[in-house]
Amino acid sequence: MTKTNPIVHGLMMDVPLTIPSLLTFAARYHSETEIVSCTSDLGRFRYNYAKAQRRAGRLSNALRRLGIKRGDRVGTFAFNDHRHFELYFAIPALGAIVHTINPRIGAEALSYIVKHADDKLIFVDPSLLATLHGAIPDFPLERLVILTGDRTLAGQYPGILIYEDLLLNESEDFALVDIEEREASGLCYTSGTTGMPKGALYSHRSTVLVAMAACAAGAMAISGAETVLPVVPMFHVNAWGVVHASAMAGAKLVLPGANLSASALTPLMDDEAVTISVGVPTVWRDLLIHLDETGRKPRVLSRLVMGGSNPPSEMIDGFELRHGISILHGWGMTEIGGTGSIGTAHHGSSQLADADKRKLKLKQGHALWGSDLRLIDDAGKEVPADNTSSGHLMIRGPWVVGGYFGNDDNSSFENGWFRTGDVARIDADGFLEITDRAKDVIKSGGEWISSLAIEAVAREHPAVADAAVIGIPDPKWQERPLLIVVPRERHTVVQDELLDFVGARLPKWWRPEGVVFSDTLPRNANGKVLKTALRDQYVI
Amino acid sequence: MTKTNPIVHGLMMDVPLTIPSLLTFAARYHSETEIVSCTSDLGRFRYNYAKAQRRAGRLSNALRRLGIKRGDRVGTFAFNDHRHFELYFAIPALGAIVHTINPRIGAEALSYIVKHADDKLIFVDPSLLATLHGAIPDFPLERLVILTGDRTLAGQYPGILIYEDLLLNESEDFALVDIEEREASGLCYTSGTTGMPKGALYSHRSTVLVAMAACAAGAMAISGAETVLPVVPMFHVNAWGVVHASAMAGAKLVLPGANLSASALTPLMDDEAVTISVGVPTVWRDLLIHLDETGRKPRVLSRLVMGGSNPPSEMIDGFELRHGISILHGWGMTEIGGTGSIGTAHHGSSQLADADKRKLKLKQGHALWGSDLRLIDDAGKEVPADNTSSGHLMIRGPWVVGGYFGNDDNSSFENGWFRTGDVARIDADGFLEITDRAKDVIKSGGEWISSLAIEAVAREHPAVADAAVIGIPDPKWQERPLLIVVPRERHTVVQDELLDFVGARLPKWWRPEGVVFSDTLPRNANGKVLKTALRDQYVI
Repeated sequence: MTKTNPIVHGLMMDVPLTIPSLLTFAARYHSETEIVSCTSDLGRFRYNYAKAQRRAGRLSNALRRLGIKRGDRVGTFAFNDHRHFELYFAIPALGAIVHTINPRIGAEALSYIVKHADDKLIFVDPSLLATLHGAIPDFPLERLVILTGDRTLAGQYPGILIYEDLLLNESEDFALVDIEEREASGLCYTSGTTGMPKGALYSHRSTVLVAMAACAAGAMAISGAETVLPVVPMFHVNAWGVVHASAMAGAKLVLPGANLSASALTPLMDDEAVTISVGVPTVWRDLLIHLDETGRKPRVLSRLVMGGSNPPSEMIDGFELRHGISILHGWGMTEIGGTGSIGTAHHGSSQLADADKRKLKLKQGHALWGSDLRLIDDAGKEVPADNTSSGHLMIRGPWVVGGYFGNDDNSSFENGWFRTGDVARIDADGFLEITDRAKDVIKSGGEWISSLAIEAVAREHPAVADAAVIGIPDPKWQERPLLIVVPRERHTVVQDELLDFVGARLPKWWRPEGVVFSDTLPRNANGKVLKTALRDQYVI
Repeated sequence: MTKTNPIVHGLMMDVPLTIPSLLTFAARYHSETEIVSCTSDLGRFRYNYAKAQRRAGRLSNALRRLGIKRGDRVGTFAFNDHRHFELYFAIPALGAIVHTINPRIGAEALSYIVKHADDKLIFVDPSLLATLHGAIPDFPLERLVILTGDRTLAGQYPGILIYEDLLLNESEDFALVDIEEREASGLCYTSGTTGMPKGALYSHRSTVLVAMAACAAGAMAISGAETVLPVVPMFHVNAWGVVHASAMAGAKLVLPGANLSASALTPLMDDEAVTISVGVPTVWRDLLIHLDETGRKPRVLSRLVMGGSNPPSEMIDGFELRHGISILHGWGMTEIGGTGSIGTAHHGSSQLADADKRKLKLKQGHALWGSDLRLIDDAGKEVPADNTSSGHLMIRGPWVVGGYFGNDDNSSFENGWFRTGDVARIDADGFLEITDRAKDVIKSGGEWISSLAIEAVAREHPAVADAAVIGIPDPKWQERPLLIVVPRERHTVVQDELLDFVGARLPKWWRPEGVVFSDTLPRNANGKVLKTALRDQYVI
């Protein structure tokens, strides 16, 4: 070993990266910038960052009075509105942890999660109270807070707390503890397609870094010039960091509440001059149909970020070519805590022809500094980023989980990398193309067939509303693809014609063995197709 | 004391924020993106991030071979070129410290700095070798490295090292130590207008956070879509973070070398399709004259960032109105390590009329998250951000120094804040207006007169090339302003007419007591006027 000098530290201020500092900053320097919020008791409510901080301050004092201490989990079962926003900052101010719960997760998982997280309090939207109480009937009512100022429901639930009552007599100064940046700030459970949910425990540091990354011009470019409407739920991976980023940048924030229909979103986008909105393709599909029908787009909407699942090319083209709205296709997951990759401009692709640029939009974007990606094969050997080789996608970075909350299962963590469970290709510029979940990939004759690629092609057929592909055992090839199709209403599909359509657009040996028709596809709480259920049904 | 729970840490990967990771990322995901560099031996040289990393790898191994260890300072006395870029990454990879030295600092300060920093090696541009050797004749030649592949000079300086020779037989793999993010990475001395220089010791963490902040859409918006030309020297505050940010974002980087004349910069900007350039008003003044003369702007140049001193409004208007180039006026200092404030769009100002938006451009921009600002009065009491009250500007944040290198003088640090030495106003939206250096402010009748404001108005007079204002003692008012003017060639200025011109544009009691004419103004190495020298000369 060579002789080494001692470490010399830089002489910079040791200011931690903390979540409350984002709101304090916005309240000070973007005091009048608006937050607009849709709730059942107030309709379309509006205030600003300065007022939001004062209410978050009151809330933090109320939480302390209710006994919330450092490290405690506080549940939220709520939509995107200003009270959820206040909880986002008031809970971490105390060193406590915002545990966001997906309202669509189902009674069994919900009950498991609340017990596993050991939530001390749960804040619940009035419209979700019956669901929550039904799933966890033993959870004391005096530890439930209804997110409202309306006392109508309180009579039916004796002892339950009303959010606005909590805030009445509190001081506006944040009940702030001296936060360490690696301290836990948020908890979000995966809604796994297999097994019980696992908790990602975010820190102040990871959340602030995610927000900084979201503000980058090469990512979502959230700045003080923007008005941001997060359709992606605040209960899901901190709404991909968009809410924290908006406070950091001083962007106007529009929180749409529970109604995400195109007919609710478009007037909101119009009235509030929304410039950028962020969400999943399912919501954007409805929006596109609405825009096509009405023939006009929200007046200043210029960008839609989509992630969570892959948008079909016709959707991207529809928004971009017919309505002049840019699509940013990104990728992330609960375990990443924010954006893993995003399809912004890259010097390597700037010389491409328009058609090739459009093709690139179908990929999940390119890697961003801070989310390092690599591919490995089944033996753990690195696979080249050559746009052709597939491998298991691994990720590493300061906003990636290094373990699960209260869970000893470390099978997803290997040598400092997180195994995403996705199978992907990466090109020389870092553009990522997820071809499958590892457990859904079809292994045929020693090669991998991408179920996602077949599904994408099948959905391009005019008679197909939705499609899923699973592997079925084959004596010769090990597995072969089976195509499951939901036909579009008032359309007929002929099996052979569909197989020819799909087969002509893919490698010859990827042509599915058969088609089955179904009225619907089973999905989990985040809208992902449950292929396990399909395999149970179709694999004999 | 209330009973508290123990701290619960988040379960995120503990990946440190380090400088080498920026280049490793760029080499991997932006491998073909170009770095263009102007040097005396290669002319206009071009390579890419992948090749840059391999050369930086060789360099790090050469440094190790030359005995450089963790914590050692390695000096650079150089312009903006690709070898300086390689040093930016290779030195910190070893846990050593890049000590950038300003070539204009003067022999006495240079000798002081090299001794104070205890530089183990100094890398020097061939054109600066005589200056360096002249200032520190005892520094061993075998610890000097000429930044060239040309051996012409080596004969005159026996034992001196040649950069390209160092790299010849080294491995391309970074000689990387396991860096802690708070470890020191860079050292930059202030070129103070009073006293001996003081060293700001940056860390990996602060440098990476500065780069992230520079990439923000609300700051310099450096992304993979941009081609960045840093005119601001790499020897000065890490070129305001622009070089690190370019690697982080995968932006094409154009390094202009020693020749910053408008006639050298414009073809470089044209040929290399530069979209954004960053520098001080002095350089931009020449560029504007050149653009006005030739009647055309570099074809895709869209933004100029300026800081370091205040651009006159006619310069901002000239670029924006005549040439369609946006001006971003920012503020920082050696002790901040990057951008402290910048004039991007802010929701609060988006409704302003164009004329008012233009006025806002004269301010130093608004605060950014991470650089918290406040004003205090002489007694240390906070002064409101009301756009009217002046106070001493204090700053706090993760990229602000908390002390000086090898210096016990803590007089600038108060309760976790750094006293910038500037006097400023702040408005409700956080827009900063620096009105003076605290030591230059003129105290008249218990009120403060801004020397900078009088200078700015004086420079608007057609016969004035340059102007400075100092306070002279006054028996009644304590101090009164004296205007020192450099007349424009072939112009005559009449004292009373000039005083009337200035007086009409300012509060009545700010009218200077007199005017003196001078051929030139004394300036320090960064081009700042030495008011101490003026006071020595004119205050009897």
